[in-house]
Amino acid sequence: MDLQALSLGMNTIWVVLTAAMIFLMEGGFALLEAGFVRSKNNVSIIMKVFVDMVFGVLAFFAVGFGIMFGVDKLGLFGTNGFALQGSLEHLGLSVPSEAFWLFQAAFVVAAISIVSGAIAERMNFKAYILFAVVMAAVIYPLSGHWVWGIDGWLAKLGMKDFAGSAAIHAMAGFAALAAARLVGARIGKFNEDGTVNVIAPSNLPLAAMGTFVLWFGWFGFNAGSTLNATASNIGSIASVTLLASAAGGASAMLYTLFKTGKADPAFTINGVLAGLVAITAGCAFVGPFSALVIGAFAGVLMIWATGWVDRMKVDDPVGAVAVHGFNGAFGAIAVGLFAIDGGLLTTGGWNLLGAQVLGTVVVSVWGYLATAGTLKLIDKVVSIRVSVEEELAGLDLSYHGTAAYSELNADMPAFPLEVPQIQQGKGSEAVRV
Amino acid sequence: MDLQALSLGMNTIWVVLTAAMIFLMEGGFALLEAGFVRSKNNVSIIMKVFVDMVFGVLAFFAVGFGIMFGVDKLGLFGTNGFALQGSLEHLGLSVPSEAFWLFQAAFVVAAISIVSGAIAERMNFKAYILFAVVMAAVIYPLSGHWVWGIDGWLAKLGMKDFAGSAAIHAMAGFAALAAARLVGARIGKFNEDGTVNVIAPSNLPLAAMGTFVLWFGWFGFNAGSTLNATASNIGSIASVTLLASAAGGASAMLYTLFKTGKADPAFTINGVLAGLVAITAGCAFVGPFSALVIGAFAGVLMIWATGWVDRMKVDDPVGAVAVHGFNGAFGAIAVGLFAIDGGLLTTGGWNLLGAQVLGTVVVSVWGYLATAGTLKLIDKVVSIRVSVEEELAGLDLSYHGTAAYSELNADMPAFPLEVPQIQQGKGSEAVRV
Amino acid sequence: MDLQALSLGMNTIWVVLTAAMIFLMEGGFALLEAGFVRSKNNVSIIMKVFVDMVFGVLAFFAVGFGIMFGVDKLGLFGTNGFALQGSLEHLGLSVPSEAFWLFQAAFVVAAISIVSGAIAERMNFKAYILFAVVMAAVIYPLSGHWVWGIDGWLAKLGMKDFAGSAAIHAMAGFAALAAARLVGARIGKFNEDGTVNVIAPSNLPLAAMGTFVLWFGWFGFNAGSTLNATASNIGSIASVTLLASAAGGASAMLYTLFKTGKADPAFTINGVLAGLVAITAGCAFVGPFSALVIGAFAGVLMIWATGWVDRMKVDDPVGAVAVHGFNGAFGAIAVGLFAIDGGLLTTGGWNLLGAQVLGTVVVSVWGYLATAGTLKLIDKVVSIRVSVEEELAGLDLSYHGTAAYSELNADMPAFPLEVPQIQQGKGSEAVRV
Repeated sequence: MDLQALSLGMNTIWVVLTAAMIFLMEGGFALLEAGFVRSKNNVSIIMKVFVDMVFGVLAFFAVGFGIMFGVDKLGLFGTNGFALQGSLEHLGLSVPSEAFWLFQAAFVVAAISIVSGAIAERMNFKAYILFAVVMAAVIYPLSGHWVWGIDGWLAKLGMKDFAGSAAIHAMAGFAALAAARLVGARIGKFNEDGTVNVIAPSNLPLAAMGTFVLWFGWFGFNAGSTLNATASNIGSIASVTLLASAAGGASAMLYTLFKTGKADPAFTINGVLAGLVAITAGCAFVGPFSALVIGAFAGVLMIWATGWVDRMKVDDPVGAVAVHGFNGAFGAIAVGLFAIDGGLLTTGGWNLLGAQVLGTVVVSVWGYLATAGTLKLIDKVVSIRVSVEEELAGLDLSYHGTAAYSELNADMPAFPLEVPQIQQGKGSEAVRV
Repeated sequence: MDLQALSLGMNTIWVVLTAAMIFLMEGGFALLEAGFVRSKNNVSIIMKVFVDMVFGVLAFFAVGFGIMFGVDKLGLFGTNGFALQGSLEHLGLSVPSEAFWLFQAAFVVAAISIVSGAIAERMNFKAYILFAVVMAAVIYPLSGHWVWGIDGWLAKLGMKDFAGSAAIHAMAGFAALAAARLVGARIGKFNEDGTVNVIAPSNLPLAAMGTFVLWFGWFGFNAGSTLNATASNIGSIASVTLLASAAGGASAMLYTLFKTGKADPAFTINGVLAGLVAITAGCAFVGPFSALVIGAFAGVLMIWATGWVDRMKVDDPVGAVAVHGFNGAFGAIAVGLFAIDGGLLTTGGWNLLGAQVLGTVVVSVWGYLATAGTLKLIDKVVSIRVSVEEELAGLDLSYHGTAAYSELNADMPAFPLEVPQIQQGKGSEAVRV
Repeated sequence: MDLQALSLGMNTIWVVLTAAMIFLMEGGFALLEAGFVRSKNNVSIIMKVFVDMVFGVLAFFAVGFGIMFGVDKLGLFGTNGFALQGSLEHLGLSVPSEAFWLFQAAFVVAAISIVSGAIAERMNFKAYILFAVVMAAVIYPLSGHWVWGIDGWLAKLGMKDFAGSAAIHAMAGFAALAAARLVGARIGKFNEDGTVNVIAPSNLPLAAMGTFVLWFGWFGFNAGSTLNATASNIGSIASVTLLASAAGGASAMLYTLFKTGKADPAFTINGVLAGLVAITAGCAFVGPFSALVIGAFAGVLMIWATGWVDRMKVDDPVGAVAVHGFNGAFGAIAVGLFAIDGGLLTTGGWNLLGAQVLGTVVVSVWGYLATAGTLKLIDKVVSIRVSVEEELAGLDLSYHGTAAYSELNADMPAFPLEVPQIQQGKGSEAVRV
């Protein structure tokens, strides 16, 4: 046992444990999205998260990883490492290549899942599988290469995006915008007179639990991105991540409380997530006070952006565009403002801000256009939109042959009818005397 | 890379990972409490857990941390470290100060959440925000300083409370007692003839999942409290934590099974939690057999204490007083009985037991009085109790403008009506042939 | 601080953290099983998981651990280490003995929980407690000793079962088959004309969340089985685990999609789990392409095996036999085919395959026979089957005195009736303008 082996082992368990935390975030996405949509589409949205996970992992293994992290060509894409074959020496990894792949696979799955929420309740299942494969194989890895690949062109311009406010959240958030537009709004979302109907979340406790799971995973997401267990800033990264999320949740909660008299749960949830998204780029570059500012602004920006999406007549059932798109972009740009090293407000320098703005615009536009193009192509093979009958029946029955909560089904006797007249709670009652 | 850097890195990832596990416990609290209260207040109680997390973190960052861990004044409170500013050298930390802060922030949030359960279904939301801020900024940090601060007066008397049976659970559990008394009982809980109505848990699977999440987090809570990844007792701490929880769950389950013929799920859940609470102080000081005794006793003590709370006409919807108050106090005192080093039963010495009893009484009384005083003050600004109309309507609609399960709402067509007569299960059926 | 202490500390936190992840899998089992069975038995199945955890841990501490890991006698059983007493030097542990015990305790609890699903909705609670104790004290530890004990007879024959496809999953999966047969089918599962009724899952989102939790825990299950944080294959173990699960989920999902036109959620869930089960033995011995093959085959094997179980007129409400029994056996045998070192397909050698087949048959038959014998004995003390009245009423009311979702209870006003005519969603609506 020598120091080198110990250090490598420590990096490896750090990366594997944090990767597992990020994969658990898929459970968080599943609950969050299921809780936000109607019960008749709960299975459908969860099945899409399963698609993200199983097809996302397979496509990233076969193709995406090589494009993202292979030896660079022209700053645009990687050229080896497909199926983990070939030398990855150029990456100078601090962990075994399989551990690095695992962590990156967790990232790509998260990116796809951001889109899944925006197209909930009306996208064809087979079309979604095709989209998920293209997203994991090409769309995300290409822009990911520009930002994070060795010799990626945005990386060489000096763009800093520690854990992916731009590379993951803004890219996927604007991909979600394109997808939501192309798939079209749910029946009943927008009225002919231009007004908007709120389609209420079906299960807020489920959505809240999803949020806590995502929160947990985010510690792995941000701090694990060091890929190095002896990085001296791990404590700081985790702390500013927490501070920004708290500030985001607080600002969104207070905003709704003072504006409407009622603290809104969906906005509180999305406020926390907005704070997390916005600090993801800067968690390794900004101090705690900047994190508080970034988080607090993110919470309010999310509310404003939710309104903007509605006004654009885009139907985004879970707020993916507002949370991930707008706040991913804001978070990446905020690095140019608040970074201790190079930020405009901290050092007066404009260079970093320029790189951040350029990079953010590039990956956001890329996410939007690549997704729009992909979906248009897929639509020629299999319709991306479900039929009216399928949508009204709910995608759970139409596409998965089952209801999420089967005992509420017309085919079965309703639950209360099965319960005989046994006095409820007697056991507990008796023992409490 | 040298040994020192490796050791610091290892401590840091240990503390960050276990802190993340403790923050996930908030998801556990949310599910547990939502599952134990009525559906019409599910959003409300979860929003209070969000308050614990967002305002708790912010208040602890700004004020509480300095009071708890700053340079000591008179053994009573700390005087620096506010917003993580100033030197923390006196703490002699094994990890970066941000990582230490993160871990401690996870603790304070847990402490507030203990109170949230006891006031469920009838406390005003704004008043709760104010309380959470005071709890995180002053109440918990002050007694925390006495027990855990460098030169805290109880610490100097020799009190041992490894992960906080007293400093967190007893303090917050008796704070919960004060809060539940002051807020008053839910409408319909107590009859005029003095009898008690059981208000049944609305969703036991949710509560059970909360329990498993809390159980998971507790390994981080107790073992992470070493703040040192090379502490030789980490394996032992985790093991006795598990043994005590198993004994607590077993004793509560068997007690109800033999007394009433039915194994009670709510008492089983609270038995597991009681075992966890009771071993929290002693997990680093007692052996496995003592842990079994402590856990088994905790499970039964919790049942007895639940009856006592009822007889006192205090309405504690989730059993916070019985689980955290009584078993926190018991667990801290049990150190004086069972500690391998200094316990009465193990060494015959009375000194440690004296310090434990004194410290436990002090922090319990402090938790009760400080909370009572704070709530009385808050009540002058904003009523701590909701109105009768709000309570009957449910706090979800009254305070958050939404139902937890919106499709059960009067404004929307009920779920079964939307489901068309598609034959359920056909898909699975066919494929199984 | 020296290298030795650092290495020991690192191994310890690795084992404690991964053990905690495995214990969290109990929450996954609870949700998965509750989601798959009818609402009237949701509390009942979760209480059985609590039994697994509390009585499983206690019985394994007192008896099972010694039988499994004590000093060997005749290759058949261990003879010391009961209640963690006596020397464990023969194990040559890389971690403190308590940490090793903790990890093994997590394994035994998982093994029992596999059986709990198969007997859901109709097994007597007291009989189940007795069974869980015997399983943790004797059945699992005995065959576990043969496979994993120092000088266990199957280990000496060269059998390789890294994290327990055979020792845990096949053994417990065929124990589940025996238990399901002996307890008999649920009323209404099989018709007199030999046809099978699908009893639909009551709550698929719950089941899906359980799956994500199990998935997360499996990273700890497989990678943690190194018991050594500097094992150079940790990254590889975690990666092939992920690849096999993705392949299993994909193959099951696509199979149902192309065969029936609808992607089946229950089979997708069980496909992921089948892939995980099947890679558990080989995760340290096979490469990524073999993992993909193993996982993909496991997904389809699970579907076929589910049909076989139905045709055998065995009622297995959650598919435990198909997932754990068949795929555990397949996974263990697959090591003999695909192992880089010694596999038939990779090296042409038959020795390893022989040892794998023999060992797998032995532990599977043992699991079946030992469980059948134990349940027959228990049945003489307390009936293992509930009464018809209890079953129709649901085990929640019959055995635990409560309903899982109490507000759907006949004794209480239904939830919608309590909700007053407050306009839902106004708060959110207003703030979105």
